[in-house]
Amino acid sequence: MPGTEDYRTWLGVALEEARAGRAEGGVPIGAALIGPGGEVLGRGHNRRVQDGDPSAHGETAAFRDAGRQRSYAGTTMVTTLAPCWYCSGLVRQFGISRVVVGEKRTFSGGQDWLAENGVEVVVLDDEECVRMMTGFIAAEPALWNEDIGEDG
Amino acid sequence: MPGTEDYRTWLGVALEEARAGRAEGGVPIGAALIGPGGEVLGRGHNRRVQDGDPSAHGETAAFRDAGRQRSYAGTTMVTTLAPCWYCSGLVRQFGISRVVVGEKRTFSGGQDWLAENGVEVVVLDDEECVRMMTGFIAAEPALWNEDIGEDG
Repeated sequence: MPGTEDYRTWLGVALEEARAGRAEGGVPIGAALIGPGGEVLGRGHNRRVQDGDPSAHGETAAFRDAGRQRSYAGTTMVTTLAPCWYCSGLVRQFGISRVVVGEKRTFSGGQDWLAENGVEVVVLDDEECVRMMTGFIAAEPALWNEDIGEDG
Repeated sequence: MPGTEDYRTWLGVALEEARAGRAEGGVPIGAALIGPGGEVLGRGHNRRVQDGDPSAHGETAAFRDAGRQRSYAGTTMVTTLAPCWYCSGLVRQFGISRVVVGEKRTFSGGQDWLAENGVEVVVLDDEECVRMMTGFIAAEPALWNEDIGEDG
């Protein structure tokens, strides 16, 4: 069974993605899909700005990057920010077993709903994740609201 | 206010997409995002096979095709098949106002959850939609199970 050290390692991959997204002028949220043995199956970051693609949330980008999989049993989605309803629905529909969340202070999505539906949810409350989102939301509130479907 | 005739017209766009997907050897599910005035903002079909992209469900493809939008208030997602949790989450997160469903006999996703959360849900129970999915599921059960995350 993986433990906190593994979760921190995986979050490091998601953080690299989030930083890359911020450097590109995008929404700084990154994610990775981790296989049952701890291997990185896919990784990605939000690409709303970069690709003009509103469906490219971090989790969806990582899921897409992993390509077609016959089963998601035993996989983990690690993400710098609590998953929105869209990305929570992704996790539930495809039977991803675990979600590791960098932080849920700046945004609260579907993590409780996932836990109620059998997904293991781990919240790391990581300071760098909080700082990155807090800074981004303060700097670009309109872009942030657009990314989560909040009418301005 | 739009009525059944509008819903049927919009479903026609989703059906064209589904037929195109089937002709390409893909999963025959199509969708369109309709603006508040009845205009087609985006349209698409499942592209799991065509692009090797497991995130490209019909609804997500249509949402992506519409590009960045400031608000989804008053929009309708029309889809040939009841939306799965992933696509239901999309509708909820982005505040899409209405979902028009071709049929929910062959698959039941998040339509009741959407209705409980303030989304108007219309089910047309369309015979062509049912025929297309029934034929596809019988012909390609493994591909269908992969597309909805059911372990075979």
